[in-house]
Amino acid sequence: METSWNLPPLGTPKSHIPTPALLVDLEVMEANIARMASYFQNQPAKLRPHFKTHKSPVLAQKQIQAGAIGMTCAKLGEAEVLAEAGISSILIANQIVDPLKLSRLAELARQTQVIVAVDQAENLRQISRAVLQAGCTIGVLIEVDVGMHRCGVPTAEAALSLADLACKLPGLNFLGVMGYEGHTVFEADAAQRKQNAEFAMSALVGTAELIRKAGIEVEIVSAGSTPTFNQTGAYPGVTEIQAGSYIFMDSKYGAMGLPFTCALSLLATVISVPSRDRAIIDAGLKVLSTDNGLPELVAPAGVRLVRFSEEHGKLELDPEQAQLQVGQQVELIPSHVCTTVNLHDRYYVLRGGNLEAIWPVAGRGRSQ
Amino acid sequence: METSWNLPPLGTPKSHIPTPALLVDLEVMEANIARMASYFQNQPAKLRPHFKTHKSPVLAQKQIQAGAIGMTCAKLGEAEVLAEAGISSILIANQIVDPLKLSRLAELARQTQVIVAVDQAENLRQISRAVLQAGCTIGVLIEVDVGMHRCGVPTAEAALSLADLACKLPGLNFLGVMGYEGHTVFEADAAQRKQNAEFAMSALVGTAELIRKAGIEVEIVSAGSTPTFNQTGAYPGVTEIQAGSYIFMDSKYGAMGLPFTCALSLLATVISVPSRDRAIIDAGLKVLSTDNGLPELVAPAGVRLVRFSEEHGKLELDPEQAQLQVGQQVELIPSHVCTTVNLHDRYYVLRGGNLEAIWPVAGRGRSQ
Repeated sequence: METSWNLPPLGTPKSHIPTPALLVDLEVMEANIARMASYFQNQPAKLRPHFKTHKSPVLAQKQIQAGAIGMTCAKLGEAEVLAEAGISSILIANQIVDPLKLSRLAELARQTQVIVAVDQAENLRQISRAVLQAGCTIGVLIEVDVGMHRCGVPTAEAALSLADLACKLPGLNFLGVMGYEGHTVFEADAAQRKQNAEFAMSALVGTAELIRKAGIEVEIVSAGSTPTFNQTGAYPGVTEIQAGSYIFMDSKYGAMGLPFTCALSLLATVISVPSRDRAIIDAGLKVLSTDNGLPELVAPAGVRLVRFSEEHGKLELDPEQAQLQVGQQVELIPSHVCTTVNLHDRYYVLRGGNLEAIWPVAGRGRSQ
Repeated sequence: METSWNLPPLGTPKSHIPTPALLVDLEVMEANIARMASYFQNQPAKLRPHFKTHKSPVLAQKQIQAGAIGMTCAKLGEAEVLAEAGISSILIANQIVDPLKLSRLAELARQTQVIVAVDQAENLRQISRAVLQAGCTIGVLIEVDVGMHRCGVPTAEAALSLADLACKLPGLNFLGVMGYEGHTVFEADAAQRKQNAEFAMSALVGTAELIRKAGIEVEIVSAGSTPTFNQTGAYPGVTEIQAGSYIFMDSKYGAMGLPFTCALSLLATVISVPSRDRAIIDAGLKVLSTDNGLPELVAPAGVRLVRFSEEHGKLELDPEQAQLQVGQQVELIPSHVCTTVNLHDRYYVLRGGNLEAIWPVAGRGRSQ
């Protein structure tokens, strides 16, 4: 289908990019990558950025060139995209349990260095059998519930028991533990967020200590997120951080005072101005996610985004303050970058307001 | 990227389809198509189903084989997908305003019969110039605001003025009026919904009458939705209905007592059971939309979906009533079918519980 669809040529100014379009401000994004990389240059912990945010191998390569030790991803399908792009160390921060996926996982581990999260004994046995059949080995992290109450074993003792089993099973290379402090990341007060993240990390690092006391080497203690990058990332004993959103940011994280700037926006066009106090844009639920609320409209004073439907956004205008014309472009900052990127097939990458590249969102749709 | 990713062979039982997967129950879907087609066989109004729901040319063909007079779509990119699939009468129920898209629109009108919605004089002039340059003609509907307060002219007089202009401009074939009663469709009480829809249609049909009184022929009066299909669809003077969701339904429309049955579900797998009262599935915000709330879990008593994150769904279990095992499949009914389909690349089409076909969601991502 794409063949008949002419993409704009490189050099096209923003004003001529067809909308709705997901724009990357390359300079801002490069500054975000550099700022995060620079932080981890001086830390014992290292950065393994999360692919789920951008789903782009091009960006994964940029993060690795800046010093990241590999990539984190959520799904086996994403890991396959990373491996095809030549990324050589991939953490799948999730459980892979069904038989067909276990075969794919083992095949992937035959090709590149793969680490997978596990929180159940039977799953360790399944993975062991699969990699033995494929004639390879795979890295394993035991996922620990550090307070988010999603996946993960509930106690250090349970983690030790799985670590012990992982060491005994053939084909498995027990590497350490993982725990996501997702319940702490939206706390707006940085001091409180730090305290919450450190409490979560005390459980994770304590688990690593218990496993070490049993004589098992623990190389990796993986955790983290963008809002806790310098809290979890500075916690003694944590070795890897899985931050993702920092590369683009969004209006939700952008309001938290973090040292990263929004680099992603959605370009839209006013398609109708039916009255002096209303304008309609060509962007809605199918190009901007709303699980964190409506996106933030970048617009002159007196213009307010009030409602989304599938392909429309309704703007309310104060006629004393603002006018919009049919055909005029407006920009919106996503409220949740990861779920917004997940709606798109490509990035329109701008430098100095002109199109420098178009990058496919190659991992989009690879949820299996 | 897809080449390396083996899709399951036809005949695969549901239990072996990799998850998360968007499933179509073919028998239920065929019954929905037949039921809607049968209603419109006995009506003056005809059905022009909305492509935005399923974005699949395969399904558009099935709807047309059942009697639909053509397709409605929201976006120019969707119209291009329909034209490539050989659909010969396409209504773009939206304004196309930017210069590059106007060229594409005209090119499309050169290839097939296209009708486009307009609510502004300058847009009529733009479209006229574009089709003249392409050496073709295009159908035009004037969009009327029938109470939703999104796009559309606010009065019958304004519609008449645009209709008159459309008749005078070369290349434009004025066909009629369009108005979407979107503000009425979620009213749960059918009698009240009928009253609201009829009030909206009195404005639309009244507008058509005013235009006719001015000596201009009005062939098309287009409106409608799934919940008002037999209200708006029975209103005297309405000639076309744009219903979309009826083909699959969802939990929101499914609760409204309409004569269609849910044919679409999301197959997920339990990936972790960290405690007796909690299970985690491999489906979240990236495969199921939540703009109409959480989807409906099809599960044994005592299991409740309580939370979504990007790739996880958290289930609460009553341990006295229910147990779930790692690896077990569960199904969810989307709360909003259109925005959920928009997340997927393909349908896994089942008949009698076995995979009969895999259909691409060819219009996904074609929002420009």
